[in-house]
Amino acid sequence: MKYWCPLAWLPSRVASGVLVSEVDGVITSVGSATDPGDAIVLPGLVFPGFANAHSHAFHRALRGRTHGDGGTFWTWREKMYDLADRLDPDSYYLLARAVYAEMALAGITCVGEFHYLHHAPGGARYRDPNAMGHALIAAAQDAGIRITLLDTCYLAGGIDQPVSLTQQRFSDGDVFAWAARVAELRPASHARIGAAIHSVRAVPRAALPVVAGFDGPVHVHLSEQPAENDACLSAYGRTPTELLADAGALGERLTAVHATHLTASDVSLLGSSRTGACFCPTTEADLADGIGPARELVDAGSPLSLGSDQHAVIDMLLEARAVEHGERLRTGQRGRFTVSELVAAMTAHTALGWPEAGRIEVGAPADLVAVRLDTVRTAGSLPEQAVLAATASDVDTVVVGGRVVVRGGGHALGDIGPLLAEAIG
Amino acid sequence: MKYWCPLAWLPSRVASGVLVSEVDGVITSVGSATDPGDAIVLPGLVFPGFANAHSHAFHRALRGRTHGDGGTFWTWREKMYDLADRLDPDSYYLLARAVYAEMALAGITCVGEFHYLHHAPGGARYRDPNAMGHALIAAAQDAGIRITLLDTCYLAGGIDQPVSLTQQRFSDGDVFAWAARVAELRPASHARIGAAIHSVRAVPRAALPVVAGFDGPVHVHLSEQPAENDACLSAYGRTPTELLADAGALGERLTAVHATHLTASDVSLLGSSRTGACFCPTTEADLADGIGPARELVDAGSPLSLGSDQHAVIDMLLEARAVEHGERLRTGQRGRFTVSELVAAMTAHTALGWPEAGRIEVGAPADLVAVRLDTVRTAGSLPEQAVLAATASDVDTVVVGGRVVVRGGGHALGDIGPLLAEAIG
Repeated sequence: MKYWCPLAWLPSRVASGVLVSEVDGVITSVGSATDPGDAIVLPGLVFPGFANAHSHAFHRALRGRTHGDGGTFWTWREKMYDLADRLDPDSYYLLARAVYAEMALAGITCVGEFHYLHHAPGGARYRDPNAMGHALIAAAQDAGIRITLLDTCYLAGGIDQPVSLTQQRFSDGDVFAWAARVAELRPASHARIGAAIHSVRAVPRAALPVVAGFDGPVHVHLSEQPAENDACLSAYGRTPTELLADAGALGERLTAVHATHLTASDVSLLGSSRTGACFCPTTEADLADGIGPARELVDAGSPLSLGSDQHAVIDMLLEARAVEHGERLRTGQRGRFTVSELVAAMTAHTALGWPEAGRIEVGAPADLVAVRLDTVRTAGSLPEQAVLAATASDVDTVVVGGRVVVRGGGHALGDIGPLLAEAIG
Repeated sequence: MKYWCPLAWLPSRVASGVLVSEVDGVITSVGSATDPGDAIVLPGLVFPGFANAHSHAFHRALRGRTHGDGGTFWTWREKMYDLADRLDPDSYYLLARAVYAEMALAGITCVGEFHYLHHAPGGARYRDPNAMGHALIAAAQDAGIRITLLDTCYLAGGIDQPVSLTQQRFSDGDVFAWAARVAELRPASHARIGAAIHSVRAVPRAALPVVAGFDGPVHVHLSEQPAENDACLSAYGRTPTELLADAGALGERLTAVHATHLTASDVSLLGSSRTGACFCPTTEADLADGIGPARELVDAGSPLSLGSDQHAVIDMLLEARAVEHGERLRTGQRGRFTVSELVAAMTAHTALGWPEAGRIEVGAPADLVAVRLDTVRTAGSLPEQAVLAATASDVDTVVVGGRVVVRGGGHALGDIGPLLAEAIG
């Protein structure tokens, strides 16, 4: 198949009149062409597929349902646990399929699912102990996007505390049982397997090296809330970042999610080890986490990725803008990130174990997102800066592995709003 | 005409099955009805029309064009001045009509236009000295929305500094010439006249009482940037708020726009005098202004309104969410504003001199905004909390004074993206 882009975001520049050829889902040529010929014509500005590097799919069911009575991150978590108690593999498949379809509509072609809802209520194992994980992989397949299942180790309800009743669904009992279960997960052409340390609260110190040693991408919630730092300092006499460093967990395969409340020394440890940083600024605002040191982390050496996390909104363009806005608000300076850096973060697939993806170039997966430049939101913007004007509503066409998943703003599965409503219902 | 709302945001609650009758643009009855009968059926949740309390229409032409090379608020302002140099009444009419149509699509039924681009380049008067203001009033008319033209007094390039070449377009020379020109502005059924003090930098101390004495709403840019505070303290030995207080300018008719960098004493002065506060959080993030003390101002007694200001985005739902997010980011608490308080701010017309508007009740203007609850963004949310999930893209139908201006997400003028592109050209 061939696709013609009036404008395309190539690795080195925004080019006009670009013909992208694809065979078996992989880009085989990228050339200049003033005429589309027999190619499929994409509108607007065509980006590489967006990567949503941090997702908890089931949290989507909390959108617009947790603002009734104030509270904090921790009271929000109680509502999230109530929801976690109610899902099984069938209902989670239906919910996740709709959520991943919403992601596809937003131009997301690959999701990193930070997955910890493993077992049946009370902790009973499903017949397939990976029934929930496989439901998520199937959901991504049917929604037409790639997934990296970041299977999450979750063993404690806090440092030196047993898991609660709800958390029994998250726990494998010990880290070796976690590893044995993960070894049985089945990847697929659209699905790769990674690991996650839920947090230094939920994984005991001795277990950290086991998870961190997983042969693939590893993610960890890091210093999202001051209370996490306080607990870690109190128990171990060091910050969560320092604890991970001591466990040998830092490095290029690790991505630190949130990284909101860091010391200067934490930033240096993360950056010098090339540990990734995944910011989720719409969630970090919604959950009252705070604004993390994105620019300092990138300057120190950490590659930046972005996630929609709890899905109060699913829009990588808004996440990119929000990370830059956070910088502006805390420093009084504009342009803390260049637009190219923001696009790099929106399309960062390495943190998800797809290092070949995220660029429109030969050999990369044919994952393309066409963003209209003629809507009320984007009209008048320079293409090079349209990322700071567009929203998910401006995504017109999405191609994943050479397959058109979204066209004219509509998903191949049909109308997704009702699918979401039914799954959440 | 009659409109049937499956759900409606009434002053006291979200009600289901609401029939709104209108005669000559004014609501004549609001009743309960399970069946639409012969009424026009609106989808989703119907709000009173949104008020955009702070607009500089021409700044829309800067969207996606000022992110090339970092800088600050003050370097951004240079780009804005370059643009200001190029507009005349005809081109400004075309640009503003498209911008106000974009506002209508976002559910905005009344705009407060903080208008300071009065004269021809170099300061020459147009044959109608209010040609630019009248162009804005005509643009709002043709876009189908209400306008309050906040005619802005702008006399100095800084405290004790002459106006620059560009600023000659803004200046009437002295405050009495400003007042004489404003007296000739022609209101209309859709248009009311207010006044504005551009800022304590641009209006000398002695002139403040004259503008503040205008018989109608008066707005002022207040403490948007620390440099404004520094200049005011240095020249007058008091904060901008204190200077306005000394001039007798504070009070219910005054709205302080931004109010970002305030002392506790400033908050108290503004609140106790019932001076309004207009926050523009997407602009305040984009321009690296900072996060102002919204909750403290409201608690002190200031009514809150919202504006899209420089129009990096035009979406009052996002403005409402952003003011709450700012609160969450700076305090670590969720629910700093109730959803009802956010809706009150989004629909606050008193600051624009339309105290009868902004509520679905008998005697109010028939200004209605139907927001879909079945899109990928809103599906699953509780109607009472949908404001924290919806965006301007979910606005389906907009009625202004009983006239349907937007239907099915389309404007009566046709496709607005191309109108914007052409006007910005």
